[in-house]
Amino acid sequence: MIKVGIVGGTGYTGVELLRLLVQHPHVELVAITSRKEVGMPVSDMFPNLRGRVGLKFVDPGEAPLKQCDVVFFATPNGIAMQQAPELLGAGVRVIDLAADFRIKDVAVWEKWYGMPHACPDLVPEAVYGLVEVNREQIGQARLVANPGCYPTAVQLGFLPLVEAGLVDVGHLVADAKSGVSGAGRKAEVHALLAEAGDNFKAYAVAGHRHLPEISQGLSAWAGRKVGLTFVPHLTPLIRGIHATLYGRLTREADLQALFEERYAGEYFVDVLPAGAHPETRSVRGANFCRIAVHRPQGGDTVVVLAVIDNLVKGASGQAVQNMNIMFGLPETAGLEHVPLLP
Amino acid sequence: MIKVGIVGGTGYTGVELLRLLVQHPHVELVAITSRKEVGMPVSDMFPNLRGRVGLKFVDPGEAPLKQCDVVFFATPNGIAMQQAPELLGAGVRVIDLAADFRIKDVAVWEKWYGMPHACPDLVPEAVYGLVEVNREQIGQARLVANPGCYPTAVQLGFLPLVEAGLVDVGHLVADAKSGVSGAGRKAEVHALLAEAGDNFKAYAVAGHRHLPEISQGLSAWAGRKVGLTFVPHLTPLIRGIHATLYGRLTREADLQALFEERYAGEYFVDVLPAGAHPETRSVRGANFCRIAVHRPQGGDTVVVLAVIDNLVKGASGQAVQNMNIMFGLPETAGLEHVPLLP
Amino acid sequence: MIKVGIVGGTGYTGVELLRLLVQHPHVELVAITSRKEVGMPVSDMFPNLRGRVGLKFVDPGEAPLKQCDVVFFATPNGIAMQQAPELLGAGVRVIDLAADFRIKDVAVWEKWYGMPHACPDLVPEAVYGLVEVNREQIGQARLVANPGCYPTAVQLGFLPLVEAGLVDVGHLVADAKSGVSGAGRKAEVHALLAEAGDNFKAYAVAGHRHLPEISQGLSAWAGRKVGLTFVPHLTPLIRGIHATLYGRLTREADLQALFEERYAGEYFVDVLPAGAHPETRSVRGANFCRIAVHRPQGGDTVVVLAVIDNLVKGASGQAVQNMNIMFGLPETAGLEHVPLLP
Amino acid sequence: MIKVGIVGGTGYTGVELLRLLVQHPHVELVAITSRKEVGMPVSDMFPNLRGRVGLKFVDPGEAPLKQCDVVFFATPNGIAMQQAPELLGAGVRVIDLAADFRIKDVAVWEKWYGMPHACPDLVPEAVYGLVEVNREQIGQARLVANPGCYPTAVQLGFLPLVEAGLVDVGHLVADAKSGVSGAGRKAEVHALLAEAGDNFKAYAVAGHRHLPEISQGLSAWAGRKVGLTFVPHLTPLIRGIHATLYGRLTREADLQALFEERYAGEYFVDVLPAGAHPETRSVRGANFCRIAVHRPQGGDTVVVLAVIDNLVKGASGQAVQNMNIMFGLPETAGLEHVPLLP
Repeated sequence: MIKVGIVGGTGYTGVELLRLLVQHPHVELVAITSRKEVGMPVSDMFPNLRGRVGLKFVDPGEAPLKQCDVVFFATPNGIAMQQAPELLGAGVRVIDLAADFRIKDVAVWEKWYGMPHACPDLVPEAVYGLVEVNREQIGQARLVANPGCYPTAVQLGFLPLVEAGLVDVGHLVADAKSGVSGAGRKAEVHALLAEAGDNFKAYAVAGHRHLPEISQGLSAWAGRKVGLTFVPHLTPLIRGIHATLYGRLTREADLQALFEERYAGEYFVDVLPAGAHPETRSVRGANFCRIAVHRPQGGDTVVVLAVIDNLVKGASGQAVQNMNIMFGLPETAGLEHVPLLP
Repeated sequence: MIKVGIVGGTGYTGVELLRLLVQHPHVELVAITSRKEVGMPVSDMFPNLRGRVGLKFVDPGEAPLKQCDVVFFATPNGIAMQQAPELLGAGVRVIDLAADFRIKDVAVWEKWYGMPHACPDLVPEAVYGLVEVNREQIGQARLVANPGCYPTAVQLGFLPLVEAGLVDVGHLVADAKSGVSGAGRKAEVHALLAEAGDNFKAYAVAGHRHLPEISQGLSAWAGRKVGLTFVPHLTPLIRGIHATLYGRLTREADLQALFEERYAGEYFVDVLPAGAHPETRSVRGANFCRIAVHRPQGGDTVVVLAVIDNLVKGASGQAVQNMNIMFGLPETAGLEHVPLLP
Repeated sequence: MIKVGIVGGTGYTGVELLRLLVQHPHVELVAITSRKEVGMPVSDMFPNLRGRVGLKFVDPGEAPLKQCDVVFFATPNGIAMQQAPELLGAGVRVIDLAADFRIKDVAVWEKWYGMPHACPDLVPEAVYGLVEVNREQIGQARLVANPGCYPTAVQLGFLPLVEAGLVDVGHLVADAKSGVSGAGRKAEVHALLAEAGDNFKAYAVAGHRHLPEISQGLSAWAGRKVGLTFVPHLTPLIRGIHATLYGRLTREADLQALFEERYAGEYFVDVLPAGAHPETRSVRGANFCRIAVHRPQGGDTVVVLAVIDNLVKGASGQAVQNMNIMFGLPETAGLEHVPLLP
Repeated sequence: MIKVGIVGGTGYTGVELLRLLVQHPHVELVAITSRKEVGMPVSDMFPNLRGRVGLKFVDPGEAPLKQCDVVFFATPNGIAMQQAPELLGAGVRVIDLAADFRIKDVAVWEKWYGMPHACPDLVPEAVYGLVEVNREQIGQARLVANPGCYPTAVQLGFLPLVEAGLVDVGHLVADAKSGVSGAGRKAEVHALLAEAGDNFKAYAVAGHRHLPEISQGLSAWAGRKVGLTFVPHLTPLIRGIHATLYGRLTREADLQALFEERYAGEYFVDVLPAGAHPETRSVRGANFCRIAVHRPQGGDTVVVLAVIDNLVKGASGQAVQNMNIMFGLPETAGLEHVPLLP
């Protein structure tokens, strides 16, 4: 059994980690921390865990994290980078669900996240945990930077096209829509049901923190700096991201075959038949990314539709997938849930 | 492995049975029927099952149902009663998720369901599958009548009070609220998102088919005919029933202790601490019924709050629970999902 | 033109007052205050008002409230009672949408609202603004206590029965369901879309502040202290209250005729035909209360269904209705909106 | 008073027309037809109209439509073209909310709508009712083709850019999201709350009927055939369209000024300040289109955000706006509703 600790368990990625890990056949939950809720049974905050998770929140300073095999950080940005060095030094592996180790260019990171990086020397070592690209390095990693939710959907959607050099990477468009759980379990007016319900809007068009993360990945595969317009939207659903991706084809290709071949060995990436439209509920609660590729009217614009559950493949599920690889477990262990529909 | 057939797999109880059974450690799915969709892969209709359920819908007449150990009827009312005799005759056990065998008084059944009963002789044998009451008989049953969704929540909520003779059973009130999946996967205007969304209403106040089913149970435990006012409401959520139950206390008692003791051995009935308010999402996708009991202002009115997922404990999950008992499996086999929250 | 001031315009009752008043033919908006948002154009906070409301939020201390004919308090509880005496002294009429003047028994008020009352001497003078009961006194009032949202629906539903002495007032049950805008525009976790969406729960079963308010009204009409069990629920819609009311009949009566006659002259109370089920969306954005009365199975329990828009008839619309009466305007002035459906 | 008839009043555009027209100061509702619901009071189907609309549905054959000044067709495609010639011949003006007269190229229309056109000779005369472009011709028109919902939002968003020749019209992208009322009041499984709720998906990526309508408009303004990729999505809200539009700039320009100037005289088009993000609820129930223009990261891609209420500016409100112009009324008559928020 792998001994697992979770730092910061009061948010949605925290409760989702707990949901997945408590059902994982090879995991022993050792500790979950919260500075604010010390002593409160986890299942008091999250009643879905009643009878399943007996742990109480413990103070980060007192949690036996160094006795864990792996520690997940389900914290706001800027926390993992403060604690990771000490844990790594103690031989504990670290998976950060926040953004601290996702951007290789520390100056870029500091600009977008508005703080100095606490351990820039660890950044080069951190492996970006997009399994479908970095599976091998993840297997060797001590420190994994779990991808962001939008970046997971957008990168998996663009990946085959960019790798194959089929699109004008100078002018990519990612129009992405997210459910409100992506905003986290924070008391903010704009995320109230009375505000975000029965409503739809774009936000952060001028610049969203996931833009440099996505650009970094796409640029690496393209071999040159890509030009990406990324527009996120808030949609009145709880879980789910739908990315609609647009690119201009630079040469002919069998797009359906391209996607099917690229993801042939990937259990968690499901390429739908030609003409299909994936829906977010088809992955609700599960670690899948479902993708369809279209070429409307036979023109030179390719449209990719990619859906994930932002809390699973876009966060906690992918984190568990990374853990499985890091510890030599079957990649699907603890992740074989059938999506909940309706 | 238990060989399972499903008759009528195109509705919500059908897809939910498939979700649960495909993850069940002791089940082999043999056939799923649909008159209309013969030949269609089940996962074309329900994309959450892609990669997990390889079956196609087969014609009811051609399905190898007699080779199954158990057949679930996830059909409209009136279908199971036509096919059950032949299956039972062939040694196949039957679990009906519809109402054909729930009401012992055939005349009452025929009045409320508006059709003659096709096999009234089988009705006495059928065991009403409310596990927390009839566990032993279910273990011996060939034919189980799986309870309705409202009746499950309302009966589990009233059960301890009525068994203990603590309330005036002549004047019980059950104010119940259901998500729209309870109306089934039928194309009806009133269930459109544009109609039922952002809207709340009562319906069938004059009389709902679940009234005689609930009254039958309560009356049996009370030892006399109960007087029940049952008002169902449609609420804009997908899954979930919340029953708010009112009774007038006839004598003093420790209500919290009463409920805790009655359900002490019941894994799937979770009595919350005093003062709590269960929420429907705390059971989303799982087989639990969570219950709280209140006595507002210390008066003589007891208020019970009970929540279930109408598609799980209120339908397919309870059906699997019944199957487990009928076949001597652990009662929780295949039903240990943690509810999905948020 | 009536000169109107609004104290506390950043919540939902504030923006709803603005929506109604800006379209009112006899109103001139003079000032709207907010301590926090001084200087911000109102339409920056509420984009639905762009092009219609040119006002900016002003500091309460600097607003020309004494030059108004009437001031609405759309504030948290405890504010109006501090400022009303001075305004009344200056000849300004006051309508408080909060609870400061609703409860005649100051000790009861102080117990439920947890603070000493700032001007108990004004409480006797304040008229409870339930128009269908107190129309005449409202016409003479300087100070109106606008009813709460639940109390409006529950009282209008019980009123004909209690006035006529038809029900056992010792054991009334009000099972009420509210949309989330009733919780106000406050950043609280439990009201997030990711928490309250696709979810249903009861709350405050042990005691809700609207209980003494409702009991006060019912008791006055009954001529004795009533026994009421009041259970509020949070339902995932934005606007709307549905009250389901239960009482035990003490004698025979034509209930449909009773309700139709009681509300025959009331434009804003719509008694539906026998057998009907009002839905919350049928009053969305409008000042109506729609009511249906049932007697299920011909038994001795009467069931009343009453719906309102909590922000209109349950708050700002009723406040404008009160204003119209106080100033001798047609009662429907500025309130003739057709509900928005779908 | 203008005498108005409505053909086909049982859908959402029908009830919305009624909501708007019954509050219109210059309109007398004469008749509303429905083949199926002859004799039913309109307010039985649409309870929001209780007390406001006394009409009953009449058979199309018996309705006094020729005595009207104007007849609105709120019908499925293919109905108006059968009845318009006779009405026009009788001197009645016609506004078709369906698509029969929107496409000037009859062959294109017949291909996309799958039927022969019944009166191709009337097509040239019909004026496309996008007021902000064709106001003058509308003033002279006998027959107005009211624009589709998506085409209204997409065209108003692209209009200033295309007119000014600022974007590469060979590669425009319109990523549009619609609430479910856009699918109409039809009993279809995919639009059930249990299907479309808490879900998001694209549809008709291969080709949607609004594509040729949008292309026709853009091409006319561009002076050449445009290349447009149009991807519609279904989002779980009731009313609202959000169009996110992408174009590649071909030269420098002050985009904010361009939009503000183009729409300076347009009451119903509201250009938001630079940096803003319009939300669909800000136009709920009202005839506005709110637009923001962005140039993310200062690159060469322009992003336009445009929101409308699909049932108002995208259908019935725009139809009333057209009527106002056709009859020389103030353009805003009957359309001054403040959007409903929250």
